[in-house]
Amino acid sequence: MEREDAKAPGKQSFSFGSGVYVGGMASVAGKLESEGPLGEYFDIVGQDDMFDGKTWEEAESNMQLKAAEHAIADAGLKADKIRYMAGGDLLGQLIATTFGVEKLAIPLLGLYGACSTMGESLLAGAVLVDGGYADHVLTITSSHFAGAEKQFRFPLAYGNQRPMAATWTVTGSGAVILSRQPGKYNVRLLGATMGRVIDYGVKDSMNMGACMAPAACDTIYRHLKDFGLKPEHYDRIVTGDLGVVGKEILLALLMEKGFDITKQHMDCGIEIFDAKRQKTDAGGSGCGCSAITLTGYLLKKISEGVFKRILFVPTGALLSTVSFNEGNSVPGIAHAVVLEYCGK
Amino acid sequence: MEREDAKAPGKQSFSFGSGVYVGGMASVAGKLESEGPLGEYFDIVGQDDMFDGKTWEEAESNMQLKAAEHAIADAGLKADKIRYMAGGDLLGQLIATTFGVEKLAIPLLGLYGACSTMGESLLAGAVLVDGGYADHVLTITSSHFAGAEKQFRFPLAYGNQRPMAATWTVTGSGAVILSRQPGKYNVRLLGATMGRVIDYGVKDSMNMGACMAPAACDTIYRHLKDFGLKPEHYDRIVTGDLGVVGKEILLALLMEKGFDITKQHMDCGIEIFDAKRQKTDAGGSGCGCSAITLTGYLLKKISEGVFKRILFVPTGALLSTVSFNEGNSVPGIAHAVVLEYCGK
Repeated sequence: MEREDAKAPGKQSFSFGSGVYVGGMASVAGKLESEGPLGEYFDIVGQDDMFDGKTWEEAESNMQLKAAEHAIADAGLKADKIRYMAGGDLLGQLIATTFGVEKLAIPLLGLYGACSTMGESLLAGAVLVDGGYADHVLTITSSHFAGAEKQFRFPLAYGNQRPMAATWTVTGSGAVILSRQPGKYNVRLLGATMGRVIDYGVKDSMNMGACMAPAACDTIYRHLKDFGLKPEHYDRIVTGDLGVVGKEILLALLMEKGFDITKQHMDCGIEIFDAKRQKTDAGGSGCGCSAITLTGYLLKKISEGVFKRILFVPTGALLSTVSFNEGNSVPGIAHAVVLEYCGK
Repeated sequence: MEREDAKAPGKQSFSFGSGVYVGGMASVAGKLESEGPLGEYFDIVGQDDMFDGKTWEEAESNMQLKAAEHAIADAGLKADKIRYMAGGDLLGQLIATTFGVEKLAIPLLGLYGACSTMGESLLAGAVLVDGGYADHVLTITSSHFAGAEKQFRFPLAYGNQRPMAATWTVTGSGAVILSRQPGKYNVRLLGATMGRVIDYGVKDSMNMGACMAPAACDTIYRHLKDFGLKPEHYDRIVTGDLGVVGKEILLALLMEKGFDITKQHMDCGIEIFDAKRQKTDAGGSGCGCSAITLTGYLLKKISEGVFKRILFVPTGALLSTVSFNEGNSVPGIAHAVVLEYCGK
């Protein structure tokens, strides 16, 4: 993974030299998520989904604050040692983040990448650390089922029916502290691939997997080409929230381009719920889906050496009710980061 | 402006060593803006405010595409030489940017900083260039009067009355190409200060200047302290869209902290319109306000040596209709970048 090579014109990837280290992490999850297959891994679980808030939006802000504070403490730090924060959420104008973390008084690089935000924030945070602008950066995101349904689809009280291709927005917040020096975890970020906006013209806001799969394909393909790698280089290639519908599309699209990732592919949206038992249709989604699967499960498994190397590729559907109602398609974007075991 | 000093814990600023250069720029403006005091400076002016789009949102996307293409050509480049793009807009889910620039196929770091986005994108873009991740980065933002009113306040057809403290969202898009090597302009970025979310509890969405002034104060104050500078170091300290109400608050707040910037202060929102003649109340606002004042006027004047050194501090009001309707305040954020003449 040579830095100079990946920096050649036309390529989308770069590497972080000796790496940027995971210094701390946190996963805050809702009740349904805690009852799913990964339930035992989450650091903080809410008994209801209000997290002491009066509104769903305030609940989500409170989750972000809990995640931020837990991750900072997990890294053995105080908030004033975190030089910058890179993060965002699904709600308009990033209100979960804005109101969630303002009391920490950490300078904020506000990001919007829909459900790809955990990947985008890790990429931006790692650039700030690797580039020499910070010793510690907080990366963070979240989503809330009720707040997302209210913003993007129907109010819950309306009781609309859901098609089988619909995904279920995860209630959860994940945070990672990125540091220049190794800490207690054996995980480092070695490189990243910034995604492009990819639009195959899919117009079904109830089938986000189909909207996002082409973007995941593009970023994974560009990543493998930029670094001259085969899928076997990774133990797992992990997408964010394609669900069962999007997964099939991704595998088929990459196969057309000559890459078979069937053995390596894992999707956080499929892992986080037992879809049949929990009635979550095509799987989990939302910024929080990939964020808490990463911070609750994947990073811990890498640190233990269970996984040696993962390509983490959260996927975002750039869905807007305004553009959607005007008849536009739902473009996708996906950002990839390389996570590697660095223990002895 | 020593880099090591500004990187000390607790500080918010960093410097870019020998600088990151402005390689190209573009300003696309609406009709009302073209009739204002800066009208003669804009590169592209629309005859109506639709820019060949069928909707206001599509009009804004088309403006961004025009700005991006003009800036890339101005730098003597093709789109495939632009390694990354950092940008965003005011609309939910950044749809102006998403649909505007997707055909350029440049990897996108999607940002949300409300009307501070031009500062945030310059900061993030300069980090990518200075940190060695790209030779050329496109930074871009936009806003559209009709689209913003529809999203944040009332549909235009409703014909609501506007209080005198209200600002007028600028229809415009600005783009800057940041490059590792000097180009035809004599302007470089020397440093930046990333802002924090600042919330004084102001709840008036028709008085955005009051919401943002405390954030502008905080970022300017932190910048001057981090680098040990006095206001006289700069020819101009330029805020984005405080308007006449916010300007007074900013000057008073900074005076309380021991800094008198009365002589240096300039506000893009006040400069861009002749408020009395054009009936724009407290001044211009929106991401496009500071963006086209920067790319149309300020950068050209720096390149000519008229201004030797400017602190550019666009301000964002993190207004959401959801949080606002739930009774929340409107917090602010401001990001600062140092722009310097580098001719002989």
